[in-house]
Amino acid sequence: MQFPSRLIEHAVDEISKLPGIGKKTALRLVLYLLKNDLTVSESLAESISNLRREIQYCEQCHSISDGSRCSICANPRRNQGMICVVEDLPDVLAIENTGQYHGCYHVLGGIISPIDGIGPDELQINSLVDRVAGSASEIEEIILALSPTMEGDTTAFYLTKKLQPYNIKISAIARGVPIGGELEYTDEITLGNSILRRRSYESEH
Amino acid sequence: MQFPSRLIEHAVDEISKLPGIGKKTALRLVLYLLKNDLTVSESLAESISNLRREIQYCEQCHSISDGSRCSICANPRRNQGMICVVEDLPDVLAIENTGQYHGCYHVLGGIISPIDGIGPDELQINSLVDRVAGSASEIEEIILALSPTMEGDTTAFYLTKKLQPYNIKISAIARGVPIGGELEYTDEITLGNSILRRRSYESEH
Repeated sequence: MQFPSRLIEHAVDEISKLPGIGKKTALRLVLYLLKNDLTVSESLAESISNLRREIQYCEQCHSISDGSRCSICANPRRNQGMICVVEDLPDVLAIENTGQYHGCYHVLGGIISPIDGIGPDELQINSLVDRVAGSASEIEEIILALSPTMEGDTTAFYLTKKLQPYNIKISAIARGVPIGGELEYTDEITLGNSILRRRSYESEH
Repeated sequence: MQFPSRLIEHAVDEISKLPGIGKKTALRLVLYLLKNDLTVSESLAESISNLRREIQYCEQCHSISDGSRCSICANPRRNQGMICVVEDLPDVLAIENTGQYHGCYHVLGGIISPIDGIGPDELQINSLVDRVAGSASEIEEIILALSPTMEGDTTAFYLTKKLQPYNIKISAIARGVPIGGELEYTDEITLGNSILRRRSYESEH
């Protein structure tokens, strides 16, 4: 696609670098910005520029933060004795959106994946062990909320080995048939597992 | 959706103001920006900010331009005696992409639409008449490339009335069955019109 303006071409190029946005969508966004007030473009540009420049990582949980400690770690109403270990920020957001969890997090920044060359040292695993070692008596439970994939299971196995010496309860999020999902369309591994890991009816209600 | 960072929240809010981008997509883009180098965010922000601030309108065709005259009007290899009248910039881009047109443009900036309160005075119609009046002897043809809608037809009718005194050939882009389209799925108005406006077989080949 050819553009009669270098400015448009440059903006389309930059916007279409974003994942899931092609040249046509980028052009649509550019035309929207051109049709609107200067303030719309300015505040969009400013928020993008500030985002990456000013963002910090929480020194305790390594989640994204506006300061040296994130709003969850700094919140006295959150249970500091519960640590939910997740792969990355979207998992924190997903769990926060459930409204079911009132503890803290530990963001690994990825998952052990030898194929991608990601080993334990590339992740925030040592900092988790240090965090647990530093306040083992105050920690009630560590919840592993990792994806139910081979990499997730490998990471979970590695973490349990590393955390075993501290004698803290370690749990993992439940796996099974998703609520609202139809049994006949559930894959056989999930369904098979949900039969093997069945729970007594009373404890579910 | 709640975010653990004001910066993320602000960026998601701004990005999701763009048409066709919801909160979830905006968050995905924000996470992409956070995972990448600062330069990615900086150059995206800069291109957006420059776009709206530095863009100009061509003084001849009123298309978007980097200077006071757009690259098409300033190009001596384009036929300055052919004026293709279009509604807006996307139409210019669409016609340019065909590679079939080597004349110039006139961008109306909209279309006559009484329902939306857009009359001839809101559009670049007087400037088109002035442009034609100023160099009537050099203009070979005016091509109306407006959408085949009621508003497009109204605008075309108004323009032909206004341009009649200058005695210049005025044409309109062909309407009919789209190439590659299947006859049985073509709507009846288009198909009916394409029969009424049939052309001799020789002139098509």
